[in-house]
Amino acid sequence: MEQYPEQLNGIFQALADPTRRAVLGRLGKGAASISELAKPFDMALPSFMKHIHFLEDSGWIQTRKEGRVRTCAIETKPFAAVEAWLSEQRALWEGRTDRLELFVTTAEREEKSE
Amino acid sequence: MEQYPEQLNGIFQALADPTRRAVLGRLGKGAASISELAKPFDMALPSFMKHIHFLEDSGWIQTRKEGRVRTCAIETKPFAAVEAWLSEQRALWEGRTDRLELFVTTAEREEKSE
Repeated sequence: MEQYPEQLNGIFQALADPTRRAVLGRLGKGAASISELAKPFDMALPSFMKHIHFLEDSGWIQTRKEGRVRTCAIETKPFAAVEAWLSEQRALWEGRTDRLELFVTTAEREEKSE
Repeated sequence: MEQYPEQLNGIFQALADPTRRAVLGRLGKGAASISELAKPFDMALPSFMKHIHFLEDSGWIQTRKEGRVRTCAIETKPFAAVEAWLSEQRALWEGRTDRLELFVTTAEREEKSE
């Protein structure tokens, strides 16, 4: 069973945008200020801030304001949630492969005994 | 660098919905017809079909019609794409952890030599 399905919606939705994925990629290397994060993108600051808010609301990043500078840092929990979802899917497949192998083995035995 | 960024948008967008994740979960166990897939959901068929089309367009499933029955089967490539994205992120982090450990070790040495 899926844990926290509602969180997963936001977690995956956050990854469905190349700007947000690029921001996460940058933050994977270490915390950064909003202005540093915004620099590579040809985007008005309000549009960029929407992505930052989306990442914050979906749990991917935390932000902290000190004086006039807002710093962003990546969170590890959403990664764990994505990995858990993938493992669940993989487990289903592996179960299925086992059954397929069982089927193939049984079929081979039946062929040999014919 | 990200491979196929546009495909990744759709791949992640497809996962941002609990019905679509549940359909993938079911198809992980083996192919199924549309009517079998729709059964657990309290949803009008046209709404359900939108999810099926989204999964097909984003590359998560293939469908095939035989007579009046349309059968759906899961695809493995999107899983590989999600796993590749996660590994890339993990690699960034591991690089970062190494640097942090280096920093800590250097700091410890400096403390000891003081």
